[in-house]
Amino acid sequence: MTTSSETSIRVRYAETDAMGIVHHAVYPVWMELGRSDFLRQAGMPYPEWEAVGIMMAVSELHLTYRAPARYDELVTVRSWLKSGGRRKVVFGYEVSRDGTRLVEGESVHLVVGPDGRHRTLPDAMLALVASAL
Amino acid sequence: MTTSSETSIRVRYAETDAMGIVHHAVYPVWMELGRSDFLRQAGMPYPEWEAVGIMMAVSELHLTYRAPARYDELVTVRSWLKSGGRRKVVFGYEVSRDGTRLVEGESVHLVVGPDGRHRTLPDAMLALVASAL
Amino acid sequence: MTTSSETSIRVRYAETDAMGIVHHAVYPVWMELGRSDFLRQAGMPYPEWEAVGIMMAVSELHLTYRAPARYDELVTVRSWLKSGGRRKVVFGYEVSRDGTRLVEGESVHLVVGPDGRHRTLPDAMLALVASAL
Amino acid sequence: MTTSSETSIRVRYAETDAMGIVHHAVYPVWMELGRSDFLRQAGMPYPEWEAVGIMMAVSELHLTYRAPARYDELVTVRSWLKSGGRRKVVFGYEVSRDGTRLVEGESVHLVVGPDGRHRTLPDAMLALVASAL
Repeated sequence: MTTSSETSIRVRYAETDAMGIVHHAVYPVWMELGRSDFLRQAGMPYPEWEAVGIMMAVSELHLTYRAPARYDELVTVRSWLKSGGRRKVVFGYEVSRDGTRLVEGESVHLVVGPDGRHRTLPDAMLALVASAL
Repeated sequence: MTTSSETSIRVRYAETDAMGIVHHAVYPVWMELGRSDFLRQAGMPYPEWEAVGIMMAVSELHLTYRAPARYDELVTVRSWLKSGGRRKVVFGYEVSRDGTRLVEGESVHLVVGPDGRHRTLPDAMLALVASAL
Repeated sequence: MTTSSETSIRVRYAETDAMGIVHHAVYPVWMELGRSDFLRQAGMPYPEWEAVGIMMAVSELHLTYRAPARYDELVTVRSWLKSGGRRKVVFGYEVSRDGTRLVEGESVHLVVGPDGRHRTLPDAMLALVASAL
Repeated sequence: MTTSSETSIRVRYAETDAMGIVHHAVYPVWMELGRSDFLRQAGMPYPEWEAVGIMMAVSELHLTYRAPARYDELVTVRSWLKSGGRRKVVFGYEVSRDGTRLVEGESVHLVVGPDGRHRTLPDAMLALVASAL
């Protein structure tokens, strides 16, 4: 059972902006990286979802920014499953540096097929999602 | 008086992902572009804010995704000021294509200085913000 | 006949880095945007290439950086076809601001199919390419 | 002495494009990440350069693309110093996946100050550069 996963990220120069800090649009990318690690660790890597035609389209994104990150720092994304059902899964995230919380986030996903239309999670995947909650 | 601004954006190939659609982390970048145009149109271009040491740090971001955009499409970001005070301003956004709503967004900003610490908007700027509401 | 195309780009905040200037990895994205405009203007929009299963995979990229661009500036990408044959096309680019040359670039493309394997340009497309030289 | 450094990178979904592969503009970002690791490993982390007002402005970039990378793959960037003097340093890169060479790159850097004007490397740094060649 996976309660949460931790992803370590070295801040790239390209991720900073003219304020000298990590641009706010970078965090959704890090959250996705965290989600990806979470799924791998939970035994259901996202490429395997895609291989069976199940995708998680992002339907909502919520972020709260508390403190900035800077170039070359090592930050950690903690990711967990907040809720999950046949049609919708919700992930939570916390980005931190040395124990200092930088950003909190949430992403809501709808289960869709390659055509973008709604699907329902197969039983085996639903079971994995349930066990990861 | 500016009620809202409209920014026209041609979707870049680099903005798409392996699902064949615009990646969700691109929308905050487009919203920022819209916000920038809104401020210019309202007579207070953001570089002038920065020149007097007033910055708008992003403190919250909320997005709802309704439909995808694709490479080479022409999308429109409509941006407006939802609320604005001495310490905090809130922007609203709608990204659409040919009248179809794709994404709705909101960004919350705190007024800070180059050191990242809180500032209050000077009177002249507050008046401009008030007139743009 | 299209000798060259001009694309106007407003610099995004997200495109700057901690040096306060546009990050060097942004220019290939602008060059692609310029190339896309060039093809549209030449009567062969890239989505139409893709629709018939013809893609231009990037095989080489060369850039020379002469001066930086900054947030909110309006830059121009001039794009032209340097050479073009059945299997390979080469584009040239110049990014400038108010007549000051910022970056010069070149991209080499191989004609491939959706499977990434080599293709040859259909006659009609080759004629268009030839006329744009 | 550091002959070359190796940086392991997990491909992000945001780094892919509608062709289903990593977008070509992502590689300069990975090369920079590799360069950054190289400098850290060589005992001269780039933040320390910046702290003493010495920056490496990118003046040229050259890339040759041989094979694509895809989402979730683990790629390796090997980075090394090709040449280095008081005013100019040149880095070489090879991006590979499981021994398959994907991209070769080179970046040329000029030594500048925070004002963007040319500087010369201090003796201690030049010695470090020389020892890393």
